[in-house]
Amino acid sequence: MLSINKIKYIKSLHDKKNRQEFNTFIIEGKKIIEDTLNSNYVVKNVYVTDEILDNFNIKTNIEQISEQEMKKISALKNSTNILAVVEIPPKKEPKITEKELVLCLESIQDPGNFGTIIRTANWFGIKNILCSLDTVELYNQKVLQATMGAFTGVNVYYIDLEQYIKQYKEKYNNNIYGTFLEGENIYKKNLNNKGILIMGNEGKGISEKLEKLVTEKLLIPKNDKAIAESLNVSIATAVVISEILGEG
Amino acid sequence: MLSINKIKYIKSLHDKKNRQEFNTFIIEGKKIIEDTLNSNYVVKNVYVTDEILDNFNIKTNIEQISEQEMKKISALKNSTNILAVVEIPPKKEPKITEKELVLCLESIQDPGNFGTIIRTANWFGIKNILCSLDTVELYNQKVLQATMGAFTGVNVYYIDLEQYIKQYKEKYNNNIYGTFLEGENIYKKNLNNKGILIMGNEGKGISEKLEKLVTEKLLIPKNDKAIAESLNVSIATAVVISEILGEG
Repeated sequence: MLSINKIKYIKSLHDKKNRQEFNTFIIEGKKIIEDTLNSNYVVKNVYVTDEILDNFNIKTNIEQISEQEMKKISALKNSTNILAVVEIPPKKEPKITEKELVLCLESIQDPGNFGTIIRTANWFGIKNILCSLDTVELYNQKVLQATMGAFTGVNVYYIDLEQYIKQYKEKYNNNIYGTFLEGENIYKKNLNNKGILIMGNEGKGISEKLEKLVTEKLLIPKNDKAIAESLNVSIATAVVISEILGEG
Repeated sequence: MLSINKIKYIKSLHDKKNRQEFNTFIIEGKKIIEDTLNSNYVVKNVYVTDEILDNFNIKTNIEQISEQEMKKISALKNSTNILAVVEIPPKKEPKITEKELVLCLESIQDPGNFGTIIRTANWFGIKNILCSLDTVELYNQKVLQATMGAFTGVNVYYIDLEQYIKQYKEKYNNNIYGTFLEGENIYKKNLNNKGILIMGNEGKGISEKLEKLVTEKLLIPKNDKAIAESLNVSIATAVVISEILGEG
């Protein structure tokens, strides 16, 4: 049985400020917890309701709780039958090579978009994602669930993007890609699979200060009769990554 | 001022069964309402709070209401300052030519995914989207908002997909595309920009009965180390459409 204090503590992790204070976050659902157990993340506790205990394949730190308790600690509308408490790893400096495509996200605000972008980046083999300091928090439940476990397969860093990209450009001669309404048709450009791809905020796109650092302005051309002013940012990210990395 | 009955009526349109009974739906936000006014949809009423009246460019059927009233009739967490009541057009038979790419959606359940797919399809110039009868309803608020107005630029039909695709195949010699885990690398295939593209349910993919009708099984290849078992369906749809239509 969970103590009242334990329930309070786990519930408190639904909020960003408590996650940051305790350096801890929660994840829910079997697949994502298995992915996390198989990664470098340190899983502190796993809570299960009786239903799932039989066919779940880990033995350490596992505690059986009632469905009622699970409902209390879950952050989901429909709680699953498994929840884990996981350590937030210590912050590190990005380790990036000249030979990879690095994704830079500027001020992405929607958790579903961010999670979907992580899932897509990981699918195409991107290892490092650099986020501006005001990008939505990685350990937000909605972000993590939208990654479908893929957050365990990429390194996500929150940094001063402008400073970082300036240093990158001094060091390497690679392209800095970004999407712009006045960019060049992505399907007619020869795209190198090394460098940096910047994707901007849902409403505002890429800021002026980062735009200055872009060497290749890209456009996913729009049909004459298209109604929306832009593509969803997770869709645009996928289309650009597919063009840059998809061919092999 | 809105009568209590009017408020009740508009609020009732938050629910699918009432939308279907009254053949009416609501939309919220300036851009999406302007797109709808510029389309074939029949806008019955527009409600605005005083703030927006000055710089909004339509004059018919517009009624000023208080912010409090707007909060009552809005389906959004944070209501905007404009809401419109729109007629659901009468059902029609799909009109499809041999020369276009038609998108078929089987059992898409998530409103955000469906709306994003419509936005993307419209961006790339797809005109007709055929949905299985159990696909999420087009006039769901979350679907409409995710389209960013693009629902006014495509025809969405709910039909028996199996029957329709069978008839299509008897009539035309075009490819029927679908994505499958055992499909062929999409980047190594020559893709024709005419035919049907089937995208399946978020969890289950394409059903067996539709799989039988597919002539070209496609795969968006996954990096060796990727964690998630699949791409999000709106992402996969965008990548495939980009490959089929993007080059021109």
